Amino acid sequence: MTTGLLAEVLVELGERSYPVQLAKGGLQDFGAVIRAQTDASRAIVITVPEVGRRYAPKLLRSLRAAGLRVGRIDVPDGDRTKNLRQVASLYDALLERGADRGAVLVALGGGMVGDLTGFTAATYLRGIPFVQVPTTVLAMVDASVGGKTGVNLPQGKNLVGAFHQPRAVLIDIETLRSLPDRERAAGFAEVVKAAAIWDEALFRRLEGSAEALLGLDTTALAPVLKRAIEIKAEVVSQDEREQGVRMLLNFGHTLGHAIEARRRYRGILHGEAVAIGMVYAAQRSEALGAAPSGTASRLAALCERFGLPTALPRYARTDYAAALEVDKKKRGAHIRFVVLDGIGSARTVPLRLAEVVAGIPRAKAEARAADRRKSERPRRRGR
Amino acid sequence: MTTGLLAEVLVELGERSYPVQLAKGGLQDFGAVIRAQTDASRAIVITVPEVGRRYAPKLLRSLRAAGLRVGRIDVPDGDRTKNLRQVASLYDALLERGADRGAVLVALGGGMVGDLTGFTAATYLRGIPFVQVPTTVLAMVDASVGGKTGVNLPQGKNLVGAFHQPRAVLIDIETLRSLPDRERAAGFAEVVKAAAIWDEALFRRLEGSAEALLGLDTTALAPVLKRAIEIKAEVVSQDEREQGVRMLLNFGHTLGHAIEARRRYRGILHGEAVAIGMVYAAQRSEALGAAPSGTASRLAALCERFGLPTALPRYARTDYAAALEVDKKKRGAHIRFVVLDGIGSARTVPLRLAEVVAGIPRAKAEARAADRRKSERPRRRGR
Repeated sequence: MTTGLLAEVLVELGERSYPVQLAKGGLQDFGAVIRAQTDASRAIVITVPEVGRRYAPKLLRSLRAAGLRVGRIDVPDGDRTKNLRQVASLYDALLERGADRGAVLVALGGGMVGDLTGFTAATYLRGIPFVQVPTTVLAMVDASVGGKTGVNLPQGKNLVGAFHQPRAVLIDIETLRSLPDRERAAGFAEVVKAAAIWDEALFRRLEGSAEALLGLDTTALAPVLKRAIEIKAEVVSQDEREQGVRMLLNFGHTLGHAIEARRRYRGILHGEAVAIGMVYAAQRSEALGAAPSGTASRLAALCERFGLPTALPRYARTDYAAALEVDKKKRGAHIRFVVLDGIGSARTVPLRLAEVVAGIPRAKAEARAADRRKSERPRRRGR
Repeated sequence: MTTGLLAEVLVELGERSYPVQLAKGGLQDFGAVIRAQTDASRAIVITVPEVGRRYAPKLLRSLRAAGLRVGRIDVPDGDRTKNLRQVASLYDALLERGADRGAVLVALGGGMVGDLTGFTAATYLRGIPFVQVPTTVLAMVDASVGGKTGVNLPQGKNLVGAFHQPRAVLIDIETLRSLPDRERAAGFAEVVKAAAIWDEALFRRLEGSAEALLGLDTTALAPVLKRAIEIKAEVVSQDEREQGVRMLLNFGHTLGHAIEARRRYRGILHGEAVAIGMVYAAQRSEALGAAPSGTASRLAALCERFGLPTALPRYARTDYAAALEVDKKKRGAHIRFVVLDGIGSARTVPLRLAEVVAGIPRAKAEARAADRRKSERPRRRGR
């Protein structure tokens, strides 16, 4: 039994089903769970130095106590590490250690570590098991659940990847204490997203407890994380390979990814880009007549409570269009764009590129003109 | 309807089921089949220059006639091309062409092209469809069916890969005419393998028609290719992810891969290495008391009829052991080694590395001594 277990959610995927455990201070028991879920004889923990320094020793001890041979590989921190070169050096490190199909990879860290480790596990020896031990809000509620793994190319984010489900997702919320404030906030963008597309009650709960959540108050945090994970698990169970409902999870990500790509993944966190993208998508939803007026401003207000940016960076519309050209959700001339019908309800619509970017100011001169108009109409907040 | 259709075999994998069409001169109709099987709007043919020069124009014409936008990417020939660097440049080429999820990759060529294209398709944008148009015996009966894709690392063959089923496998046996004799022969090693592990009647048919098969006599060839494909399809349908019966297809591959790795994939064809590995595995099967005496020599005799090598290269036993250390089928201390119970029947046994290599001469001096013994006992042919 995991110490301090707060909740357990099952991701139902037939023979690939797996548990998500949410615990307070459970790190020292994860070894036994990993052993039980994988039947591995050996575990290799992949982490970044800062996270590894704090949490790897306890995790490795618990793996050893469960009877596993252990190893640890540190990769440099930062989303720019999530690339093919890093994957190739992980292959080398695994071969050097003689890791075979009896090994399990354990991703200890944020979304970057999880995506990188997951893709390595998906492709090493045509696939070995892996387990997620997420240490960021974003990874806990979103990245670690659902089996999407991948790496970036210079041309864009997550352009290479595979679907490979973990054998377990093991969360110790105590690990959030060491997370920098900015990353903590960015993680809540994905919680806001889950609420916005799926569950207005959760959205209201977030509106009622944003500050307590940022302060990691367990009473506020546990039910919110649990519900966000349940939503993710439900969506993934219904549509593992993103043929349908799972696409809703890309709400805010179309523009978000374009912003990250345009910034070359520097100076902006994924959750921050998603917050901007969500507000933009909500504005498009209103403009397309899908969402009632006020939806975007309510969403922007909540994002701002979490300290998230909501204003679109002032790149030229053509820059956005160029970045969107390589969007994975693009198929032929259309992008599957996620619009809100209102808070708590979403759907995808096939939009032409021009329709997606129609809300972006066309050029600097026009942007200044738009700015003047905006300052005259205070209702259009959160741009 | 495909021109000259000789047979169609269905690989039954639920929603991932797909047809294998065997035709004589059907290349000009494959475009329509590819369109029907994928619903793609665009096809990108990946091939090697020599094969592309002969067959790509006809295939591209048929894809265009089916209403698809088309493209062609040539990669350098040879198994050494099947590496991560080549995959990365394929990603770049696909992005440059703006290939999205409405694109299908078409592998036109041998096993190398199929494995490389399949792995690229498995991982580009987290997976896009692909179709196999194999032009070698080996790719037709083995590599193109079953969804194993992958690339080599300097440390060993196929150490990186993914399971990704094609949407169709489309064979025009006319393309075999341009195949060099040596490659043609090497391809029959996988046919011999299918017969050895699964179907003594096919084995007898091969014994009765080896020369006609090498001469590509359609009357001899069509039923043999069809039966070999049926066996592969049956095995894959029962065990897509190689948890059980599919491992039998690795008969001869444990040593075969070690030989290829030791040779750094130079100067030996996959089928040739497999022939040597099969004869060795049959000898081990006899030594372990699994197969009746004479099994290995019967197998060796058939391989020799196809012009395949059967003698173990004289590397030190420790060299073989080192190469086997990175075998994908290794799990903990054991290798899942495929033994014959006799011609037409096989099973896996977990063997320690030392048991696998026990039939390999220990050192040069010992090898010479063994040679002398062999020449005195003509029964032990085919070493």
